[in-house]
Amino acid sequence: MASPETLVPSVLDEYGAATAVVLCDYLGLRHPNRHLYGPVADYPRRGGRMLRPSLCIATARAFGAPLQRAVRSAAALELFHNAFLVHDDVEDESEQRRGRPTLHALHGVPLAVNVGDSLVFLALRALLDNRPLLGTLLTLRVVEEAERMARESVEGQAIELGWRRDNALAVTDAQYLEMVLKKTCWYTAIWPCRVGALIASQGLLDLERFVRFGFFLGAAFQIRDDLLNLEGDQRRYGKELSGDLWEGKRTLMLILLLARATDAERDRLRGFLAAPRAARREADVVWLRQCMEAYGCLRHARLVAHAFAGAAQHECRALFGNLPASRDKQFIERLPRWVLSRA
Amino acid sequence: MASPETLVPSVLDEYGAATAVVLCDYLGLRHPNRHLYGPVADYPRRGGRMLRPSLCIATARAFGAPLQRAVRSAAALELFHNAFLVHDDVEDESEQRRGRPTLHALHGVPLAVNVGDSLVFLALRALLDNRPLLGTLLTLRVVEEAERMARESVEGQAIELGWRRDNALAVTDAQYLEMVLKKTCWYTAIWPCRVGALIASQGLLDLERFVRFGFFLGAAFQIRDDLLNLEGDQRRYGKELSGDLWEGKRTLMLILLLARATDAERDRLRGFLAAPRAARREADVVWLRQCMEAYGCLRHARLVAHAFAGAAQHECRALFGNLPASRDKQFIERLPRWVLSRA
Repeated sequence: MASPETLVPSVLDEYGAATAVVLCDYLGLRHPNRHLYGPVADYPRRGGRMLRPSLCIATARAFGAPLQRAVRSAAALELFHNAFLVHDDVEDESEQRRGRPTLHALHGVPLAVNVGDSLVFLALRALLDNRPLLGTLLTLRVVEEAERMARESVEGQAIELGWRRDNALAVTDAQYLEMVLKKTCWYTAIWPCRVGALIASQGLLDLERFVRFGFFLGAAFQIRDDLLNLEGDQRRYGKELSGDLWEGKRTLMLILLLARATDAERDRLRGFLAAPRAARREADVVWLRQCMEAYGCLRHARLVAHAFAGAAQHECRALFGNLPASRDKQFIERLPRWVLSRA
Repeated sequence: MASPETLVPSVLDEYGAATAVVLCDYLGLRHPNRHLYGPVADYPRRGGRMLRPSLCIATARAFGAPLQRAVRSAAALELFHNAFLVHDDVEDESEQRRGRPTLHALHGVPLAVNVGDSLVFLALRALLDNRPLLGTLLTLRVVEEAERMARESVEGQAIELGWRRDNALAVTDAQYLEMVLKKTCWYTAIWPCRVGALIASQGLLDLERFVRFGFFLGAAFQIRDDLLNLEGDQRRYGKELSGDLWEGKRTLMLILLLARATDAERDRLRGFLAAPRAARREADVVWLRQCMEAYGCLRHARLVAHAFAGAAQHECRALFGNLPASRDKQFIERLPRWVLSRA
């Protein structure tokens, strides 16, 4: 068994590799159209951490199912994830993803929107391909879970896009966390656990109990991700550093700053956030970053992320504590701490 | 029974109204977010002809099923249709839809992309809601049909977007028809027939036999639609007239013109099509329209549309000829001619 430090990365490597094999069924050149299936495979081939599929497989295994029963659903989730990334990058006007230009930067918005659509339908196809292994009913139940997850995701995305469009300056912590629950936690943590448990238990487990754990884990993940955007290692992070500031993204740090800033500073902030991205200046981004530091916004966000990770560990014991000891159980228990330490 | 002239419109009205009732289940204000469920309901509320859901219901009824068994799938198809419209409008930079500004013109590209995603998942939800009525297996089979249809649609869209991106000047008739088969015919005609027959026959009918009829009907529909863009009544048509010319859309008329024009004219055309939409000039659009008239491109396209409608009528007899006489059967038989006459 791997040491505590290497267990999470080694499980991610192993389950990620198993997922990647299944992904090949959907990302091969199925149709001689370089405007679709080439770009469709681009983001997945840039290589993610495979956190989501690994959590799905580990949950299924912790509850007693073999990897093979969960790996196609895990691959479908990775396809949904990449679909969301492609459309999110268009919607956020992001420039970089996983260390390279975003898909719309390479191919234009029209092709990128269509590629995102294609990834959604490939994900659905992967779920439908579960039928020979899982049977009709369980296959349909997993598709139902996907519909719920996708609905939460687009609702969360709409909340965040609405804040930017309205130039919202009074977002509360509770509103922020509701957005994160919908936009990040459902597909990053709640769905993987629910579907892993659903497949392993043949539908007998109550899936609602995974929502709280997934929320805590997903919130820690999102806040850490936003912190990495400000202070991470550009090469490892893969997106433009401080891109969130350029995009005016309502992160926990920005929300804190808006609450703590003086009236004069808030006025300057309002002006910055009201301007189109192209009109924002480097000096303003530097000033914004300095204000966040001065008002302790990053420090506070780090504390909140730690609190969520601790709560996730606590929930984890309630959910998985009675299961037999296993590498998968250990992996899930250690995920909250890993989420905080990843660079 | 309605007279021949009014039968198609009266069936469209009746089945359209039944579909609209079910659509309300998915377009109500399910979540207090005006950036999502308001815009989500916008295109559907502008009112379409309800051709696709009506064909689905009529096919189911012609094969002996009651309306209620097919109407939720018909509503799902209308949601898919609206999802495609929202994303197509973004991808084509279209300005008008059903007589009003396009969704991205009203709310910006980011919100419009997310609204299109939401409509896809609402469509999936409607299909999953078939379970109590159709049972697990048939519900899953209809979802499988939706996956196939959506795959064909995005592949067709990729072909067309690729032509614009590459400024393709040598598109052949066969390539054009393959694109139309995928982009238009699958969701406009093939899916409605397949799913209606699937539901009515509980999966016993061979669905491949509907591909040819749907292709002929859908091709007639698409060519007629492209002709209406050039010579229709703006108010009834609902999109900007000659919008296809402004967008550089590869219609049958443009493909014919590229084949028939002199070298000098083709050079001017190449320059026009290579320019971004904003750089195209009114005078060029007028010239393009005149060239199409001069070379008989519209007249030829009308003949081709008629040929496809005739072929569809022929196929229709093979598919539905042995079924008992019914208003639904008459409706389907008259659709090809109606498609040509609609304004």
